[in-house]
Amino acid sequence: MSSTYGENLKLSIFGQSHGAAIGMTLDGIPAGLPMDLEALQIFLNRRAPGQNSWSTPRKEGDRPEFLSGILDGFTCGAPIAAIIRNNNTRSGDYENLKDCPRPGHADFTAQVKYGGFQDAAGGGHFSGRLTAPLCIAGGLCKQWLAGRGIRIAARITVIGGEVDEFPVDPVNPQVDRIGSDFPVFSSEAGVRMQQKIAEARAEGDSVGGIIECYITGLPAGLGEPMFGGVESRIAQIVYGIPAVKSVDFGAGYSVGYLRGSQCNDAFTVQDGIVRTCTNRAGGILGGITNGMPVIFQTAIKPTPSISAVQQSISLSRMEEQSLQIKGRHDPCIVPRAVPVVEAAAAIAIFDLILGNTQTDRRK
Amino acid sequence: MSSTYGENLKLSIFGQSHGAAIGMTLDGIPAGLPMDLEALQIFLNRRAPGQNSWSTPRKEGDRPEFLSGILDGFTCGAPIAAIIRNNNTRSGDYENLKDCPRPGHADFTAQVKYGGFQDAAGGGHFSGRLTAPLCIAGGLCKQWLAGRGIRIAARITVIGGEVDEFPVDPVNPQVDRIGSDFPVFSSEAGVRMQQKIAEARAEGDSVGGIIECYITGLPAGLGEPMFGGVESRIAQIVYGIPAVKSVDFGAGYSVGYLRGSQCNDAFTVQDGIVRTCTNRAGGILGGITNGMPVIFQTAIKPTPSISAVQQSISLSRMEEQSLQIKGRHDPCIVPRAVPVVEAAAAIAIFDLILGNTQTDRRK
Amino acid sequence: MSSTYGENLKLSIFGQSHGAAIGMTLDGIPAGLPMDLEALQIFLNRRAPGQNSWSTPRKEGDRPEFLSGILDGFTCGAPIAAIIRNNNTRSGDYENLKDCPRPGHADFTAQVKYGGFQDAAGGGHFSGRLTAPLCIAGGLCKQWLAGRGIRIAARITVIGGEVDEFPVDPVNPQVDRIGSDFPVFSSEAGVRMQQKIAEARAEGDSVGGIIECYITGLPAGLGEPMFGGVESRIAQIVYGIPAVKSVDFGAGYSVGYLRGSQCNDAFTVQDGIVRTCTNRAGGILGGITNGMPVIFQTAIKPTPSISAVQQSISLSRMEEQSLQIKGRHDPCIVPRAVPVVEAAAAIAIFDLILGNTQTDRRK
Amino acid sequence: MSSTYGENLKLSIFGQSHGAAIGMTLDGIPAGLPMDLEALQIFLNRRAPGQNSWSTPRKEGDRPEFLSGILDGFTCGAPIAAIIRNNNTRSGDYENLKDCPRPGHADFTAQVKYGGFQDAAGGGHFSGRLTAPLCIAGGLCKQWLAGRGIRIAARITVIGGEVDEFPVDPVNPQVDRIGSDFPVFSSEAGVRMQQKIAEARAEGDSVGGIIECYITGLPAGLGEPMFGGVESRIAQIVYGIPAVKSVDFGAGYSVGYLRGSQCNDAFTVQDGIVRTCTNRAGGILGGITNGMPVIFQTAIKPTPSISAVQQSISLSRMEEQSLQIKGRHDPCIVPRAVPVVEAAAAIAIFDLILGNTQTDRRK
Repeated sequence: MSSTYGENLKLSIFGQSHGAAIGMTLDGIPAGLPMDLEALQIFLNRRAPGQNSWSTPRKEGDRPEFLSGILDGFTCGAPIAAIIRNNNTRSGDYENLKDCPRPGHADFTAQVKYGGFQDAAGGGHFSGRLTAPLCIAGGLCKQWLAGRGIRIAARITVIGGEVDEFPVDPVNPQVDRIGSDFPVFSSEAGVRMQQKIAEARAEGDSVGGIIECYITGLPAGLGEPMFGGVESRIAQIVYGIPAVKSVDFGAGYSVGYLRGSQCNDAFTVQDGIVRTCTNRAGGILGGITNGMPVIFQTAIKPTPSISAVQQSISLSRMEEQSLQIKGRHDPCIVPRAVPVVEAAAAIAIFDLILGNTQTDRRK
Repeated sequence: MSSTYGENLKLSIFGQSHGAAIGMTLDGIPAGLPMDLEALQIFLNRRAPGQNSWSTPRKEGDRPEFLSGILDGFTCGAPIAAIIRNNNTRSGDYENLKDCPRPGHADFTAQVKYGGFQDAAGGGHFSGRLTAPLCIAGGLCKQWLAGRGIRIAARITVIGGEVDEFPVDPVNPQVDRIGSDFPVFSSEAGVRMQQKIAEARAEGDSVGGIIECYITGLPAGLGEPMFGGVESRIAQIVYGIPAVKSVDFGAGYSVGYLRGSQCNDAFTVQDGIVRTCTNRAGGILGGITNGMPVIFQTAIKPTPSISAVQQSISLSRMEEQSLQIKGRHDPCIVPRAVPVVEAAAAIAIFDLILGNTQTDRRK
Repeated sequence: MSSTYGENLKLSIFGQSHGAAIGMTLDGIPAGLPMDLEALQIFLNRRAPGQNSWSTPRKEGDRPEFLSGILDGFTCGAPIAAIIRNNNTRSGDYENLKDCPRPGHADFTAQVKYGGFQDAAGGGHFSGRLTAPLCIAGGLCKQWLAGRGIRIAARITVIGGEVDEFPVDPVNPQVDRIGSDFPVFSSEAGVRMQQKIAEARAEGDSVGGIIECYITGLPAGLGEPMFGGVESRIAQIVYGIPAVKSVDFGAGYSVGYLRGSQCNDAFTVQDGIVRTCTNRAGGILGGITNGMPVIFQTAIKPTPSISAVQQSISLSRMEEQSLQIKGRHDPCIVPRAVPVVEAAAAIAIFDLILGNTQTDRRK
Repeated sequence: MSSTYGENLKLSIFGQSHGAAIGMTLDGIPAGLPMDLEALQIFLNRRAPGQNSWSTPRKEGDRPEFLSGILDGFTCGAPIAAIIRNNNTRSGDYENLKDCPRPGHADFTAQVKYGGFQDAAGGGHFSGRLTAPLCIAGGLCKQWLAGRGIRIAARITVIGGEVDEFPVDPVNPQVDRIGSDFPVFSSEAGVRMQQKIAEARAEGDSVGGIIECYITGLPAGLGEPMFGGVESRIAQIVYGIPAVKSVDFGAGYSVGYLRGSQCNDAFTVQDGIVRTCTNRAGGILGGITNGMPVIFQTAIKPTPSISAVQQSISLSRMEEQSLQIKGRHDPCIVPRAVPVVEAAAAIAIFDLILGNTQTDRRK
């Protein structure tokens, strides 16, 4: 249902890129959970623009204003609401986007769906800027999960064809090895990725990439059968992030090339806990966590805004028309998308934990 | 939420593999829609077991009994309910599965989640058999979509590493070329895939595969922003199919290797209709259909039941234990999963159409 | 949404009066809960027809067949599904009801909504018969609540103007005093009510009544603010019972005649537990239980099927037409509605308990 | 679920009485609907405080700030968000309310539910102030319904035992006769009600009342069977208004005193449209509108804040303690609740219209 998510918590995201403010409400959160707003700001700063020009100091991220749901640093049981004021004033002739849609953007589909009433400025409600309120909600959920020993971290595995050379050990993903400056294992690979981005920028082009996310410390038994499985719940929210075209779990699409004897994860017992020797399942069997790390990959398409002249159309004249997008554009949003993927995962997992009545009864 | 799906229609699937019956209820369907039960049976037959031994006649699929929601061949506005009686009587020592879980199956996670109260026989509620009621619901939705000019078809692109050699033209997927006997474009590739299956069978092993699904005839403007996008809704239900580990749209994970100039789909006008010259977006921009075919891929893992001795554990003794699964098992469920993927897609799309208030207002 | 209910459990009711079967699915129920099917049958018998002719032996209620969700007498975590086969074969000219709707019935509104495709026989999906599956779900929830010390009982306070003379003490409703034969406190009042029913029957007319329901043993702190309050959740499901026209809590509509000094319930402490000295709030403050009995009243309209000639219309000719309904009809459904109201309350309360994450954290 | 409502639209209300701001998000609204913010302000002014001292000029209501969802006076398809800044600064020792709860308020239940983490100041999230954002959402829905010829109006029928003398004609409720100054039919009755309020105020007490709401111009066929019926949907949201203890439709609880021959509404045809000669059904049969006015009554309890010394408890000492509430309090919230009831009804009806797929197909 549109810009809301959640079975047990209820997240609602609002705002347009050039509207008065963007924000979110988060209902159904228990009272008494600590809210570390400084740590949240550090998390939000990770998606701030400007971080892929590594010589310049990192820009500060958006600063949310909390309107409700918090008292003396703890959740108070009332819905949490937070907003971020927009500084981008509505300028320029955005009407043009309604007539001549940008390839790869939602301009055309928004025009069809909303019949010209949509706010086209800066992409409106479809702007990547709407991931900021997602990160507010997700950053909080991430804190609350950390309090339960559940940790979520993501790294870049591919940008523009450059691959982070060290594969992860899916049984024990060493997320501490993820670079704090550039979220990869291999700093050399990171440098090559940054070169790819710099090349794309120089040529007025853009590059996509792949992000891998690790959720560790999960109890076994989380998730529901069929449509309420962990894969379903994570995929639904991750596909809500603009530019995502792929969500795979564990061995992902490669299972299509494997035999059962290669794909099954043998069970073992370690320190009195059931584990699997490998983790091609990505920590999920039958939609339910098995206690191993949940691992998923998601592909982010290259920023559709490029400098080159592109073929578009005039909707009013219904004929082809050339389009050249002006202004500076982010040649690669993948690094900024890393915390967004973590945020989405955190929301999905915290929602599952809130609704986990089946395992509660066994306590 | 568990075994229910849908924002506008409400699908609820129930049953265990060796219980009295499996079935589904489907609420929220408008009255007056025709129900062609013969065509539905033909669709259900496609997922019937035994179809990948191509010399023997195809087995009949399960025959649903409709309990409600239908009158004189049309939906009557009341919820539709249908059941399929199980013939497999509960036999054998399924208690063993609770203590010694099969690798790759949900035996262990069900044990943790349900504390030993789960119905372990034949996988219980986690059995692939539960895709039969999904096909009842989806087969009906597929009929109703066909009545609106929307067609859904899927083919196998990979089995056990063998690839259907002809790539699809994503701008105009020629789904009529999909083989009726074995759902691939290239009959030679189909033969090679069947050989892979036969080899796996002979060796007591199994193979996975990849299925690509094409939805044509969709209007532009379907879907909602963010979490209600077409990708989110399809991914949620497709991940409800057992054994699915990957759901990708359009160019999928390969967007991580592309530049924007390679990935953007240029717009054009053809016969007075807006189209794109390529279709790397898989028919979806900003979560909303753009009028091009919606295309997605999904990877099915190899059947986890294999004949080889595997390493498992005894949960009661908390130590490793060898396990050999007896009985005949399907060495590849990919061909049978093809109609299941079509069914899931049909349910997601019909649900979106029922809730499509935004575009309705423009009529 | 139509014939589904619940935030945490998901109840879906299906069937038509003269269809193959009626039934329900109940998803989201934890595993390991005992299911006493004999006690359930005794509960279902309370809504069986024939109980208001007190000289004849009570008819047996409908016998449900459980298709899934149960194993060895316990819930197994999978959705519970149960059906009751219909014996009423489709007979008579029900097409007439589509043209000449019965006053007070849903014939006309169903015709408008479903455009003639509805199953009109016996009221179709709008039949009071659909309360039988509601009682299956509610009877089970009632058992599970009893296991937590929560008891639900209802009595008749009014039938056809005759009032059960003993008012309840809302602080301590002595539900054990409710007659097992006829659910009132005063057997004399019960006799007078039965006379009213007999008179109505003799005159081919019918009578309505009022039912009061008591939920005791509830913990304080159950319910959510605003639209998730206990009143909202109970009212939603009780209004799903056909013929209900009123749902009041505690002092109900009489609060409109009171002053604050008369309406407020003073707090006190009794045996170390917070209680109120009176209970005009009906056990609910701010939508949340305060630990006192939850009490609500619901009015059931007289059976609309009466023998007298009534004024209706011909929809085909769009003119007035007389209608005489043939056959025997229940002159008063109020006694049979008593277990239905209990069932509805039980479902609402059990749903709230499953989602009670806020109070869980305080444990 | 908590402070969210809606099947097709998604309303989420947030804020605490003394927090930074209160507000709402409203998702799922079609694009292109006009938003008359001046008319909305006039509607919001109707719930502004100070209107029951009729000699002083009416105070202005709260002024919402729209953050998103609107462009050039029309909905733009994105979620609508609006906030109202709170001027009441957090002052006084509200901690006392956590220890010594006010009778009739949610202080105690909030303490139990949220374990002391709740925002107790001014009632926090349970404050009547939260009806302001409800009126923002409802005032907009009311406008959009008016554009479809659907009108919603309410009047006071009872305050403190004084009854508006003229009964409504439920077949044709002449809502234009409702006083604009004081919403009753009979200005004499209005004067007597105001005297009751003045008396209560003088004595430091408060009075409750009953509001009757009329929804005219509805098409027949709106609503769903069972739990999705118009009564269920309206009751759920109206019970979300603080202080409501009763929601009755049509003849309401009096149906318990009637015979079928007195309660059934005969059908007739008028100007080619099916109508009923009486309207004891309150415009709803089987949960679905029959084209007659939908009429419901709701009882509002007297303001629990009164000047008299009341018996409460100390939760820390678990013993009785006297409580005297200081400050000026509204001796009767009924007049201010009239637009709130209209707002709730408008939201419920607009939600039903957005989901009305069944009747759409008949067009």
